[in-house]
Amino acid sequence: MVDILHRIGIEGSTAEQVYEAITTIDGLSGWWTERTTGATGLRDVIAFRFKDDGFDMNVAELEPGRRVLWEVVGGPEEWIGTRIHWDLRQEGDYTVVLFEHEGWREPVEFMHHCSTKWGSFLMSLKQLLETGKGAPFPHDVHIDNWG
Amino acid sequence: MVDILHRIGIEGSTAEQVYEAITTIDGLSGWWTERTTGATGLRDVIAFRFKDDGFDMNVAELEPGRRVLWEVVGGPEEWIGTRIHWDLRQEGDYTVVLFEHEGWREPVEFMHHCSTKWGSFLMSLKQLLETGKGAPFPHDVHIDNWG
Repeated sequence: MVDILHRIGIEGSTAEQVYEAITTIDGLSGWWTERTTGATGLRDVIAFRFKDDGFDMNVAELEPGRRVLWEVVGGPEEWIGTRIHWDLRQEGDYTVVLFEHEGWREPVEFMHHCSTKWGSFLMSLKQLLETGKGAPFPHDVHIDNWG
Repeated sequence: MVDILHRIGIEGSTAEQVYEAITTIDGLSGWWTERTTGATGLRDVIAFRFKDDGFDMNVAELEPGRRVLWEVVGGPEEWIGTRIHWDLRQEGDYTVVLFEHEGWREPVEFMHHCSTKWGSFLMSLKQLLETGKGAPFPHDVHIDNWG
């Protein structure tokens, strides 16, 4: 098993504000993909869509202002059954986000791509909260010839 | 053992041009840190410096236009003995860079930070080649309260 790890710090936002940006359709649409639908309560499924593909996440844990866990129930074969952990905590004027996308079976080339792309979308989350404007799909930053 | 993985695609550059940006002091100074010194031949040591810290890399493999391997011989305790792999290949109008920083002993919080920061510096490498201007230290993009 191999994991994708990231850490960002969001300046001037509370952990509650960051939590809202990852647990509401409005928030998620502002930094990951404008094509976000579904429901965001415990055991609900959130549907994230891009050009021709997407991911469905089962909301497996919700601890307001502290922690979110998604289980991937739809999407590319490599993603199914993997889990995405969000851990939040305040550190001075920052909310620190520890991110982990774990349970990948093999470190395939697609995993390399997803790691860099997650980093880029996390920077979009940071920008959304710090400046009011993120870069969700279809306005996302291209990192390679896959998107 | 846990690894940091990334993938970027650089549009309009040959693999030889990307290779040059990761195997010359001038190239490395243009996207990672302006404080890059040392020598870049096989078994030479390149010294990368930031504000108060840095990394020393032994150049362990060099395959022009295809592959570079660095072994970390100086820097933070967590980095010592880890290895950084660069694999390059042409794909249409892109040079695809597969990056791996492997050999971390534990997935510590510092590793989360380094993963995101590597992604950000790889985007700086992409920008350097695509636009002529990267964002090396001290002009680097801040990702969190650690830098």
